[in-house]
Amino acid sequence: MRMAELSRESGVPVATIKYYQREGLLPPGELTSPNQARYGAAHVRRLKLVRALLEIGGLSIAAVGEVLAAIDEPATSTHDILGLAQHGLPAATQEVTDEERAWAMGRIEAMAGRRGWEVHAGSPVVESLAGVLCALRQVGHEWVLDELDTYAAAADTVAEADVTAVAKLGATEAVVEGAVVGTVLGDALLAALRRMAHAQVSRRQFSV
Amino acid sequence: MRMAELSRESGVPVATIKYYQREGLLPPGELTSPNQARYGAAHVRRLKLVRALLEIGGLSIAAVGEVLAAIDEPATSTHDILGLAQHGLPAATQEVTDEERAWAMGRIEAMAGRRGWEVHAGSPVVESLAGVLCALRQVGHEWVLDELDTYAAAADTVAEADVTAVAKLGATEAVVEGAVVGTVLGDALLAALRRMAHAQVSRRQFSV
Repeated sequence: MRMAELSRESGVPVATIKYYQREGLLPPGELTSPNQARYGAAHVRRLKLVRALLEIGGLSIAAVGEVLAAIDEPATSTHDILGLAQHGLPAATQEVTDEERAWAMGRIEAMAGRRGWEVHAGSPVVESLAGVLCALRQVGHEWVLDELDTYAAAADTVAEADVTAVAKLGATEAVVEGAVVGTVLGDALLAALRRMAHAQVSRRQFSV
Repeated sequence: MRMAELSRESGVPVATIKYYQREGLLPPGELTSPNQARYGAAHVRRLKLVRALLEIGGLSIAAVGEVLAAIDEPATSTHDILGLAQHGLPAATQEVTDEERAWAMGRIEAMAGRRGWEVHAGSPVVESLAGVLCALRQVGHEWVLDELDTYAAAADTVAEADVTAVAKLGATEAVVEGAVVGTVLGDALLAALRRMAHAQVSRRQFSV
């Protein structure tokens, strides 16, 4: 298909598609003449993925580029694939002092100990978690951490279902894309469901 | 304290503090002379909250403004307070066709029926959830929805703990701020824990 049809199929305006191409988020089409290119179903699919990561995942253009690089990287074991997909994902960072970081790591290690989780200090995910704990303390809402074990148990249940489902996708490329999409859009899914649940619990507990 | 000390106490550069003031994210100090103002502990606290919402919550400047407006709004019942805090929060939106929306609402209503949840079609939270479902279908990763009930059960467990903890904060202002901070930073906490859990589950299932 030509560019105009790619735009219709994907619902993305032509100018936006060209912008994504300049940013390296979409591979070039197959040139059929010096200034005309042909696109396929893979381009439509990739465009929809870019839109979902930007609009639902809330990622920046640069972060989408990193995620797509993770998807396109060849890898070996399923564990490595999942790790690679995860390390390609942007993590929240927060400036913290040594004292704050030590306090956060203490809380994380205690929680991980109770759940039988391994903690790799320095890994982006652990640093990101430590940043969230420090932010909660900095804004004076440490009480949220009284729920840390409840949150971790919920995360564990969801992660078990995620990994099992992703591993069933089969082909390496599908597993990587599934891991990335499932992680980013899964966050959005969980956040929306949590807000919906807040309304239900609040109605039950406080409504007259 | 003067502006320089406010900057030291909060860890936010003076130029950034002035930018936040222009954007209405920080109330003015008490004028002690035509071009000098005095700031208090409430300013330090508010600055740390703005930083956390921007950096950990990943909100835009405009969205932080809406959240702060929700925090400063006077309200009545705890249920109303929580609703207000939630409606002040930005929700992901996704362009969907009528057919897609109907399909998503069908999935949401079936899930809600199984959990005994009320669904208010048109509420920002339900629309946001419908958007996530449509995005998953658009990118060809509908399989994530096979986990919808697992996600909803996890969200329910966390929401129950959230609402119970927030209600204990007592004063109206504290409950509103707690609800907002708990919702935004709670999303970040859950996302980080879910990624940490992914690594544990993957190691257990696939590592050699």
